Amino acid sequence: MPAALIQHPFMSADGLAATHGQALVEAMLAFELALAETQEAEGALPAGTRQRLRECLTNHTFDLEALASGVASGGNAAIPFVKQARAALPDDLKRYFHQGATSQDVVDSALMLLLKPRLARLDALLVRCRKAGIALMQAHDQTVMVGRTLMQQALPTTFGVRVAQWTLGLEQARRRLAGVALPVQFGGAVGVHSGWDDLGLTLMDGIAERLGLAAPVLPWHTDRQPIHALGTALDAAAGAAEKLALDVALLTQTELGEVAEPAGEGMGESSSMPHKRNPVRCALIRGAARQVHGHTTVLLNAAAQPLERGLGEWHAEWSPLIDSALLLEGALEQAAVLLEGLEVKPEAMQRNLAITGGAIMAEPVAKLLAPALGQDAAKRIAAEAAETARRAGRGYAEVLAEHAEISGKVAADELARACDPRLYIGSSQQQVGRALTWLTSG
Amino acid sequence: MPAALIQHPFMSADGLAATHGQALVEAMLAFELALAETQEAEGALPAGTRQRLRECLTNHTFDLEALASGVASGGNAAIPFVKQARAALPDDLKRYFHQGATSQDVVDSALMLLLKPRLARLDALLVRCRKAGIALMQAHDQTVMVGRTLMQQALPTTFGVRVAQWTLGLEQARRRLAGVALPVQFGGAVGVHSGWDDLGLTLMDGIAERLGLAAPVLPWHTDRQPIHALGTALDAAAGAAEKLALDVALLTQTELGEVAEPAGEGMGESSSMPHKRNPVRCALIRGAARQVHGHTTVLLNAAAQPLERGLGEWHAEWSPLIDSALLLEGALEQAAVLLEGLEVKPEAMQRNLAITGGAIMAEPVAKLLAPALGQDAAKRIAAEAAETARRAGRGYAEVLAEHAEISGKVAADELARACDPRLYIGSSQQQVGRALTWLTSG
Amino acid sequence: MPAALIQHPFMSADGLAATHGQALVEAMLAFELALAETQEAEGALPAGTRQRLRECLTNHTFDLEALASGVASGGNAAIPFVKQARAALPDDLKRYFHQGATSQDVVDSALMLLLKPRLARLDALLVRCRKAGIALMQAHDQTVMVGRTLMQQALPTTFGVRVAQWTLGLEQARRRLAGVALPVQFGGAVGVHSGWDDLGLTLMDGIAERLGLAAPVLPWHTDRQPIHALGTALDAAAGAAEKLALDVALLTQTELGEVAEPAGEGMGESSSMPHKRNPVRCALIRGAARQVHGHTTVLLNAAAQPLERGLGEWHAEWSPLIDSALLLEGALEQAAVLLEGLEVKPEAMQRNLAITGGAIMAEPVAKLLAPALGQDAAKRIAAEAAETARRAGRGYAEVLAEHAEISGKVAADELARACDPRLYIGSSQQQVGRALTWLTSG
Amino acid sequence: MPAALIQHPFMSADGLAATHGQALVEAMLAFELALAETQEAEGALPAGTRQRLRECLTNHTFDLEALASGVASGGNAAIPFVKQARAALPDDLKRYFHQGATSQDVVDSALMLLLKPRLARLDALLVRCRKAGIALMQAHDQTVMVGRTLMQQALPTTFGVRVAQWTLGLEQARRRLAGVALPVQFGGAVGVHSGWDDLGLTLMDGIAERLGLAAPVLPWHTDRQPIHALGTALDAAAGAAEKLALDVALLTQTELGEVAEPAGEGMGESSSMPHKRNPVRCALIRGAARQVHGHTTVLLNAAAQPLERGLGEWHAEWSPLIDSALLLEGALEQAAVLLEGLEVKPEAMQRNLAITGGAIMAEPVAKLLAPALGQDAAKRIAAEAAETARRAGRGYAEVLAEHAEISGKVAADELARACDPRLYIGSSQQQVGRALTWLTSG
Repeated sequence: MPAALIQHPFMSADGLAATHGQALVEAMLAFELALAETQEAEGALPAGTRQRLRECLTNHTFDLEALASGVASGGNAAIPFVKQARAALPDDLKRYFHQGATSQDVVDSALMLLLKPRLARLDALLVRCRKAGIALMQAHDQTVMVGRTLMQQALPTTFGVRVAQWTLGLEQARRRLAGVALPVQFGGAVGVHSGWDDLGLTLMDGIAERLGLAAPVLPWHTDRQPIHALGTALDAAAGAAEKLALDVALLTQTELGEVAEPAGEGMGESSSMPHKRNPVRCALIRGAARQVHGHTTVLLNAAAQPLERGLGEWHAEWSPLIDSALLLEGALEQAAVLLEGLEVKPEAMQRNLAITGGAIMAEPVAKLLAPALGQDAAKRIAAEAAETARRAGRGYAEVLAEHAEISGKVAADELARACDPRLYIGSSQQQVGRALTWLTSG
Repeated sequence: MPAALIQHPFMSADGLAATHGQALVEAMLAFELALAETQEAEGALPAGTRQRLRECLTNHTFDLEALASGVASGGNAAIPFVKQARAALPDDLKRYFHQGATSQDVVDSALMLLLKPRLARLDALLVRCRKAGIALMQAHDQTVMVGRTLMQQALPTTFGVRVAQWTLGLEQARRRLAGVALPVQFGGAVGVHSGWDDLGLTLMDGIAERLGLAAPVLPWHTDRQPIHALGTALDAAAGAAEKLALDVALLTQTELGEVAEPAGEGMGESSSMPHKRNPVRCALIRGAARQVHGHTTVLLNAAAQPLERGLGEWHAEWSPLIDSALLLEGALEQAAVLLEGLEVKPEAMQRNLAITGGAIMAEPVAKLLAPALGQDAAKRIAAEAAETARRAGRGYAEVLAEHAEISGKVAADELARACDPRLYIGSSQQQVGRALTWLTSG
Repeated sequence: MPAALIQHPFMSADGLAATHGQALVEAMLAFELALAETQEAEGALPAGTRQRLRECLTNHTFDLEALASGVASGGNAAIPFVKQARAALPDDLKRYFHQGATSQDVVDSALMLLLKPRLARLDALLVRCRKAGIALMQAHDQTVMVGRTLMQQALPTTFGVRVAQWTLGLEQARRRLAGVALPVQFGGAVGVHSGWDDLGLTLMDGIAERLGLAAPVLPWHTDRQPIHALGTALDAAAGAAEKLALDVALLTQTELGEVAEPAGEGMGESSSMPHKRNPVRCALIRGAARQVHGHTTVLLNAAAQPLERGLGEWHAEWSPLIDSALLLEGALEQAAVLLEGLEVKPEAMQRNLAITGGAIMAEPVAKLLAPALGQDAAKRIAAEAAETARRAGRGYAEVLAEHAEISGKVAADELARACDPRLYIGSSQQQVGRALTWLTSG
Repeated sequence: MPAALIQHPFMSADGLAATHGQALVEAMLAFELALAETQEAEGALPAGTRQRLRECLTNHTFDLEALASGVASGGNAAIPFVKQARAALPDDLKRYFHQGATSQDVVDSALMLLLKPRLARLDALLVRCRKAGIALMQAHDQTVMVGRTLMQQALPTTFGVRVAQWTLGLEQARRRLAGVALPVQFGGAVGVHSGWDDLGLTLMDGIAERLGLAAPVLPWHTDRQPIHALGTALDAAAGAAEKLALDVALLTQTELGEVAEPAGEGMGESSSMPHKRNPVRCALIRGAARQVHGHTTVLLNAAAQPLERGLGEWHAEWSPLIDSALLLEGALEQAAVLLEGLEVKPEAMQRNLAITGGAIMAEPVAKLLAPALGQDAAKRIAAEAAETARRAGRGYAEVLAEHAEISGKVAADELARACDPRLYIGSSQQQVGRALTWLTSG
């Protein structure tokens, strides 16, 4: 029998502390030092306090296990952190540490600090996706393929437009994410800077500036609109990556084979079935995106928090928020590689355009025939000939040209043109152009 | 036994067609007429076509039951609608109707048209909430109450700040919602304006302008970022209303009694228990908001749609989107009434500030005592005296003044000031001021 | 511009009352009459009371619009219903109506009454699915097709097994749903039968019996485990139908074409693209299932309700519960038709088995070659020959037989057998047999 | 600035491998050895193979980092695990390892093995909750408190009934969870035991028996009904714990104070506010439960998986499933402690019963007065007197006795009885008895 899954069952916060303990400690410390620095600058602490705190704590080794178990008793990571930090300070400094702050100030600000470099990385990955998408769009703006609605072959489009759609989705998500503010949290026990009076908001703004975070209108302890905006923006990006992965997985099917995931050491190989190249990156993206949706659902349902402090709603946010960012980062790493190395197979696209015997071109053919034969006959003949061509494995134009009712009434070259998917791609090229303009304007 | 719940079990779309059939027909017709008008303006239809279509169809009575059952066979409302409309046209007009459009063009555009006035109404309700919130903030910027964290009494705050938090939440949601675009949909069968070539994007832009909708970069058949942005913005507003309702419900509890829902004919009365006034509006808001979260979850999970047309993912969006908007509208109606008519009870707030015997002021008292008694003794005495005051039902300041260790060391009026919650409200007034500035700047 | 979407924005309950008003009234009345009947049987009401109530109310026309608007003020449908009913009674009967009951007793019991015939119908649909599934399994237990993992061709299986999997999923869901109890609700204002003492539980059991509902251990006003069990069981069935729809949609793709949805008047036709037969039933099933998941999410998040009555959590359950049942009913109607009329195309399955040139049989071929050639050479040759066969469009066995390294070492008929997908279907037939045994044992 | 949150962004599976790598390896190995043991028993492997595999691998040190990064390339943990294991075997054993199995067989079975002891532990915790609940029910079956609907005081109930409701909820969830099967997974590449023919199902059953897992009807690679049943059963237990936590948090509010969380080293203390004892356990339970709901939402939306293998849907299940179990375990640990050590304060319940001045008894008082005064006057007087009593801080019975219209018409002791909440608790005691019977019968 396998060993116990984990030694100590964990609660949400615990989990975070366990997995990301060191980073969390550093972020909480950064908040406390910025608080002290601001208070010192406003004359509320003796000169040099911040520097002394920094010297004592920056290289202090925090006990991460004690931190994790302290979360289970105190309810959040700030409580054991402050306890450990105070214990490491000389007596005269203890009171200047964490002064006027509440646990939620520390934890919310630390989360924002942890997320800031993650968002920068997400932005960079989305920029990589955009760049790779643009290159594919340009390379394939005349690569004709069949468009599929409800997964049935419908009418021709181009691969350039398909890529443009992916790239637009990802770039919309990038711009939305770039517009989300990461605000500092500082309000004290009940959010009104008890004991600080007029200085409270000044301190809040000062800490924000020092930490490179946004200054909110007011402390936002139970106003979770910023978390909602952030969480749903992450989810939007997950959805955009998921769309890409779904399409690539569909186009990669053995019977379609229009694209393939970039080859990679050990990527998608099957030891027992050498002919397979599994769309593993697509599976990982889709797996990650679905988990992001679940995490986001937690955030939606935790947006309303009671009075001056959440009672579990707040605690429920930490892991979903961090995990969403990390899952998305993993998904976008794969998405970037996918777009940068996608194997595109125009010949397979050509082959698939032909497998209905031309039926996908019945619409333009009927339009061509209508003036000479009337609309009803035109439709009937266009459909019949497609069926004949498919069964006989012959060209649609050829079959049409031989058709008794058409013979002599429509020129063969006109027929050939009407049957050519490459000539029936609508605004595809304009679309790629318009998308490029927008993508490069942001 | 009760009759069958419904005669004909319905599918998603069916439901929409059944409940909102007439409005849906009008919206789909508006799209088709704008399409014809634009095509005519571009010379793609004979002059006068749009006027003739309009005359034939505007007063035509569509068969809504047939429409609903047509949804179940065709998969969406546009298919039976186009069929009915064509049947009502003279032969020479039939081919000019719905030319170059696909079902998704019609349905997506119609949804946007249906939502447009709903969003305007939501904005108006949120403006009403803001106005009422501002009035409450101003009236109560000095109304002291106890702040509660984890639903425990903590330290004083003001009711003005509590209202400011509600109002900021709602206004953030309003601005987010106001920034969401409602784009027209027009791309034809596979999204590339098959058969229209260069004219495709021009038509798309022209229809958008005529309908007062936004012009997207490209047709967005399976790029659902616009739906994600819209759905999550609706959810954010639901969350902001839910926060208000949660707080009001908590403050309305019999034992707290700090606010009461506005009285109203039959609102919250209990026939058997005359002393009760149930927070029914809060219950309705919370009930609606939770459903919006569920609907939004559907949208998150439907953001990735295959290739050129969703296969159920698209169909899954209609009801959640419309229902979210309507549930939110209902919730905000109640929220506006709540804020406009909320009964605020400062005397109950005063009473509750006193029930711990002053213990909530132990922090400032200990600060006051520390210089004279040392920090540890100060904390101990502040806590002991609060307990004594609570048990004896006496004033905290009075008990402190009589305390043997304090006697003579701290002036009575200083003690009284330290015990006065009204003097320990931190940045409350500045916060209300700052919130007002932001609220009135948008 | 289209008319307003709806005249009066509605709240959750409102919606229910508006759509299902008459059925709801009948169910609420059934509860009240069963309550009176039980009270009369226990001697708590004068003999004949229930009969007189019945006569007064059964044919009374309730004002459904007033009911819907009463929901918005009272918070639930029972309040206006009781008001209207009392007003319709002679004075001496008024006090005997709704005696000892609270709104939640009426509404929860009415919901169970509304759901009871719906669950019966769901069971019947699932039995239809099972029957159709069994027939397909039996017909196709030797119909070989390629199995696809991550949507890539892998190894042979049979269509019988594919259907067995669908049918097992649906039948598991059916049995789960059949095991869910629909309990009566009766507890009075705070759930302890205030004023009824010992008689309380007796009344509860009596009402349950008269209504054909289950008798719970205790009133379950805020113990929502029964709702959770019901809602998640509905969701499981939605998931099983969704799996069927996903597979059918994939197998229906133009390039695969292994099955097709049953033809039907207007089902899935495309007016502009005659070659298309859209998997509309699959789209409707998937659209419905996704909405059920969203509704279920609401129920999960509403399972914890405060003290003796939900404050919005309860209100949030009504529509999701009813809508889940109805959406599932619609989905299962389509699923039954799908299974009963599915067009199966063994020749397309054969064609697809061959398109990799035999590579899907490389595993058994390598096994066959290993003893003679060594494992590494066997694998290499099996893969090479498959590639050669695919490029040349020749048979895999034939290419192998001609291979220099094999020649003479392995008999041609052995090679032919190793290359025959029909001979490499593992336990497929036993699986169909075992599934049939289980399916017919329930 | 804080260090990077994590070194290597992870995908879902990665996360699992990173956190629970060693346990996962042991579980995967247990599956492989049971597979070999069964194959050996059926004569499909040379005698002694399983023992030799065991000797080679049991003490082999797997490279967990390589495992985690192998997940990112191969898509699941089985691929790098099998690779590492094979590399550690002598050549002649390599081919006997993992024979006939596919990754999903290994991972699904390993998950079930990991969950088995967790479910045992959850059951034990729920039994602890039941025991503690029963003790509280028995101790407090006559402890009167006010029942609260929509969080408003309504009518009397007992604390014993409140606890009975919690305990019934938890025990329903326990029984549901106990009824969920943990099935082995074994089907080979496409689920039909390719190459094993008749032996396939025998092997499956044999492995199940050896691992102490359930034998499914068929391999269930893309039939996720078992996962749905398991995930939603975990969610039901989370909901039951969440209900307990919500109620305790509400009853713990400063103004109510009817219960308090058990004291504990560092539990719920506030360093700056000594009067506070925060309901930290409730917050942790609620925080965990909400995350479980989010994870369950992922499972609902992943129930439908394509053809013979999920493409991301499967990958999305692992973390939510494991995390749900662990979060629930943490939540139930807290719930057990809460129920075992809850501080119950009957005197506070008495105090709160009195704060409406008796208004909560207006219903029974009006009933008593009605025969003498008529129903309308009775109701009016009962309400008026309650208001008088509340304002004057006097006893309700006393005020009623002095009322001019009552005086002489109703005996004082009758009035006193009607005003006594202890005499108006309906079926409370019977309910506790009935609940005990059910709880101890399971």
